[in-house]
Amino acid sequence: MRTPEELAACVDVALRRRPADLVVRGARLFDLATGELTLADLAVCGERIAAVGEGYEGLATVDARGLTAVPGFTDAHCHMESSLVTPYEWERMSLPHGVTSAVCDPHELANVRGTEALAWFRRCAEGMLLRLQVQASSCVPALPSEQAGAVLDAQALAPLASDASLAEFMNVPGVLGKDPDVLNKLAAFSGRPVDGHAPLVSGDALNALCAVGVANDHECSSVLEALEKLRRGMTVFLRCGSVGRNLADLAPLLTLTLCDRLCLCTDDRDPLDIREEGHIDFAIRQAIALGSDPLAVYRSAALSPARHFGWRDRGLLAPGFVADLVLLSDLAECRVERVFCRGREVGEAAFAARPPMPDVAPFLGTVRCRELTAADFAPPESNRAIGVREGSLLTEDLPAEGDDLACAALIARHGPPERIGRAWVRGFGLRQGALASTVGHDSHNLCVVGADPESMAAAANALRMYGGGFAVAVDGRVTSRLPLPLGGLMSDRPVEEVAEALAGLRVAARATGTILQNPFLSLAFLPLPVIPNARLTLDGFTHV
Amino acid sequence: MRTPEELAACVDVALRRRPADLVVRGARLFDLATGELTLADLAVCGERIAAVGEGYEGLATVDARGLTAVPGFTDAHCHMESSLVTPYEWERMSLPHGVTSAVCDPHELANVRGTEALAWFRRCAEGMLLRLQVQASSCVPALPSEQAGAVLDAQALAPLASDASLAEFMNVPGVLGKDPDVLNKLAAFSGRPVDGHAPLVSGDALNALCAVGVANDHECSSVLEALEKLRRGMTVFLRCGSVGRNLADLAPLLTLTLCDRLCLCTDDRDPLDIREEGHIDFAIRQAIALGSDPLAVYRSAALSPARHFGWRDRGLLAPGFVADLVLLSDLAECRVERVFCRGREVGEAAFAARPPMPDVAPFLGTVRCRELTAADFAPPESNRAIGVREGSLLTEDLPAEGDDLACAALIARHGPPERIGRAWVRGFGLRQGALASTVGHDSHNLCVVGADPESMAAAANALRMYGGGFAVAVDGRVTSRLPLPLGGLMSDRPVEEVAEALAGLRVAARATGTILQNPFLSLAFLPLPVIPNARLTLDGFTHV
Repeated sequence: MRTPEELAACVDVALRRRPADLVVRGARLFDLATGELTLADLAVCGERIAAVGEGYEGLATVDARGLTAVPGFTDAHCHMESSLVTPYEWERMSLPHGVTSAVCDPHELANVRGTEALAWFRRCAEGMLLRLQVQASSCVPALPSEQAGAVLDAQALAPLASDASLAEFMNVPGVLGKDPDVLNKLAAFSGRPVDGHAPLVSGDALNALCAVGVANDHECSSVLEALEKLRRGMTVFLRCGSVGRNLADLAPLLTLTLCDRLCLCTDDRDPLDIREEGHIDFAIRQAIALGSDPLAVYRSAALSPARHFGWRDRGLLAPGFVADLVLLSDLAECRVERVFCRGREVGEAAFAARPPMPDVAPFLGTVRCRELTAADFAPPESNRAIGVREGSLLTEDLPAEGDDLACAALIARHGPPERIGRAWVRGFGLRQGALASTVGHDSHNLCVVGADPESMAAAANALRMYGGGFAVAVDGRVTSRLPLPLGGLMSDRPVEEVAEALAGLRVAARATGTILQNPFLSLAFLPLPVIPNARLTLDGFTHV
Repeated sequence: MRTPEELAACVDVALRRRPADLVVRGARLFDLATGELTLADLAVCGERIAAVGEGYEGLATVDARGLTAVPGFTDAHCHMESSLVTPYEWERMSLPHGVTSAVCDPHELANVRGTEALAWFRRCAEGMLLRLQVQASSCVPALPSEQAGAVLDAQALAPLASDASLAEFMNVPGVLGKDPDVLNKLAAFSGRPVDGHAPLVSGDALNALCAVGVANDHECSSVLEALEKLRRGMTVFLRCGSVGRNLADLAPLLTLTLCDRLCLCTDDRDPLDIREEGHIDFAIRQAIALGSDPLAVYRSAALSPARHFGWRDRGLLAPGFVADLVLLSDLAECRVERVFCRGREVGEAAFAARPPMPDVAPFLGTVRCRELTAADFAPPESNRAIGVREGSLLTEDLPAEGDDLACAALIARHGPPERIGRAWVRGFGLRQGALASTVGHDSHNLCVVGADPESMAAAANALRMYGGGFAVAVDGRVTSRLPLPLGGLMSDRPVEEVAEALAGLRVAARATGTILQNPFLSLAFLPLPVIPNARLTLDGFTHV
């Protein structure tokens, strides 16, 4: 809600009766409404653009000559926990890349701590600079068979429907099987955008999913899959994550005809990739390099998500809109020079002025399992193996044979009952040692892959001690670790430290012989039961 | 809100576990999301599309082979009172033209009866077949200087902000002058779409108007005017009304680049034009004939308004969307053959099944002025005249000279104080007699134009007797009339009768020598103080 006083101030700035709080002078504006590039000044009043024109006086001015101004970008679907840092650190990392809005599903932390996690993210959002829309995590646990740290049923979620949208609805079997709790959730959130998650779902099942109100999908891996979903009325999110990298395959869709129904997102993106490649700016750069129309691409980064989520005051550089803008030295390359969020320049001063982050105490000490021994990591009994591939969340159901077989184990870590599931994996290229992680989508049990049981036990026990994180062990001894004490998912340290530790961890992981660039991400998705085709669950190898 | 039972039924239809309530078979679907034309069947469950595909069983089927299916159209901005019939009759007239949604500003009746009028329209909407979104009339009276039948200030409107959008905000001077009541209204509705009305507003004033949240405009009369508004972030409504006919001038804007920010509307359209030319179907036909891309045109008719107003379940033929669809025998000509609204075929049976229309008693007997005499219609004192032109709401400020001068008078009719304003008019071509109307935007005082005072008095007194309407008098005697007893604005008769009476009235009006096709519409807009340049107010000739 805006106040009459705020409206009056905007009128006065627009009519040049008082100086703007900030004038951005001489930029070339990329107008996503018309596609025009025009030289103009922006007069900002408080958090909003009050006027676009020329010759405004300002209490502060920014010389933007030679730069191109575009509206701030939106990450239309992300799990901040996947960047291993708190929401406060997430924006310190991502805002400088031009990400001024994000829609997050806090379902990683929610799988550990339930509604307390949702409430904490919402409190974080209040203190943050960027617009963080916290969704109601729809599938905690991801499937009823999962043993997670919490259960969010329809009764728990319904009170959130007044001001939140429903996060990615992964329980497709629950829809098709008309599970009463599933239908109650969907009914409670009807009329709001309901996020989808429907990899390879098509035909009758896709019709059913859309018919119950699922409005978008970020799991498309081919143009044909995306086109079918567009035809069924879905908005398609083009994903540029650390594991799920679908943008290159889907870039041909980024046309003026379709771009209003396309958004960009990261889903899960680790801090090293953000530091080295970028965030939504990277997705823009990549799509334009692949030949997509820049207007279509920038629309999908800024205007389309605002339209999809019903934010009337984001996505354009126009009066009345929130002053979220990115100054670029190169439009096609999406080279971000300066970022303004709600009318303020993004930088350490702005971050330091935020209120203290809400208390993290409820998320400490969440790895609750007994000390493990080599005997816990006996060879799996199945004759099938889970095949992983760099850059894809999809796994294969393969015979347990060949010279690239490794053992994997999943240990229940949210308290009783004690359970361990075991399976063969292929594609890691492990020759010795072990990797362990308490990030193990979506229930975040303790997940270990290794070539010898002693190393597996050592890595797992290290995480038990740290309250969660990532660890590498070789010859039965831990050689590298990244503690993630908040829910076993997030560090309490600055993002720079986390990125450094992660880089060190990856180097250490190479000693195991792994051929994956980012083995901890593949490890983290190994247990995810809502993505085809083969998974590691507490029951062991599972075909899904 | 949808119920879990409704969702379950849709799932069962999509998965072919039970027959659809209705199957539309063999139509060519125009998919506004992708622009594709494909042969497919639609399976309808209750009010919604449950699936798009082939081979569904249905309790009822429609053979649509050879026809093209498009989503139902939206009239994005209309005043139903301008069609001279009740909302129930309005949909009997407009639904067969494919108009399955309408956004109405009931500000004509609100100027007569205030919040009671708004509540009545909302009650009507509950019983209607089409989706009628009733806005909160923002400017009653249109300007503070007006003497209308009611005053809707911020305090009266604020309680409506929870579920209504704010109707066309005409009081631009109030925004620029920071009128407290104006700013309070805009603040109360911030975050919701605020309709605009800003003919020829540009530059700093346009910035100010957009800065306070006005989101669209339906008054553009040129491409340049519309482009400036699009650049300032507005959605532009292309109007195809009876007086305001801007579509032909603006059709070049209807491109794939811009169509997401363009909607079609009628604003004010009389029942004869709807019967003879059509409604939104006419606008579509006209735009395509002028060379616009059919995909852009149909999007502006169906998808763009849904996006603008945030209706997530309208504007596409896709599962989960409301089954509002139009079957056409010709896509480019927009030849409507059959219409389905909320899954039911539109026809007399569906209209007859509506609940009774809410009571009209509060709107009877609203013409409250004394009996008039020839002496009340003395010649005006100003040496300026109001120039009217066929097909435009804009008027000219002209010298009171030439052989086409006529007298006009405006009589306060909502009770004391008694006032009469007089002005010269040019452009009617009157040679004898008089025309009178209680439709006189927006305060709806009694408006008379004539060549002799006796005829003016006779026509005015006839309307006093009927409780409002239109009348023609020649040689001091009434020769034709159309009573509009509901608020002096709407008939209580079926639309067919009203159209016939209106046709008869137009023929009778020709005896006065008028050169206007539709002199009563020009008469009705003569007093409108929010459109440039010259107007008839209770103070007489007024330059605006």
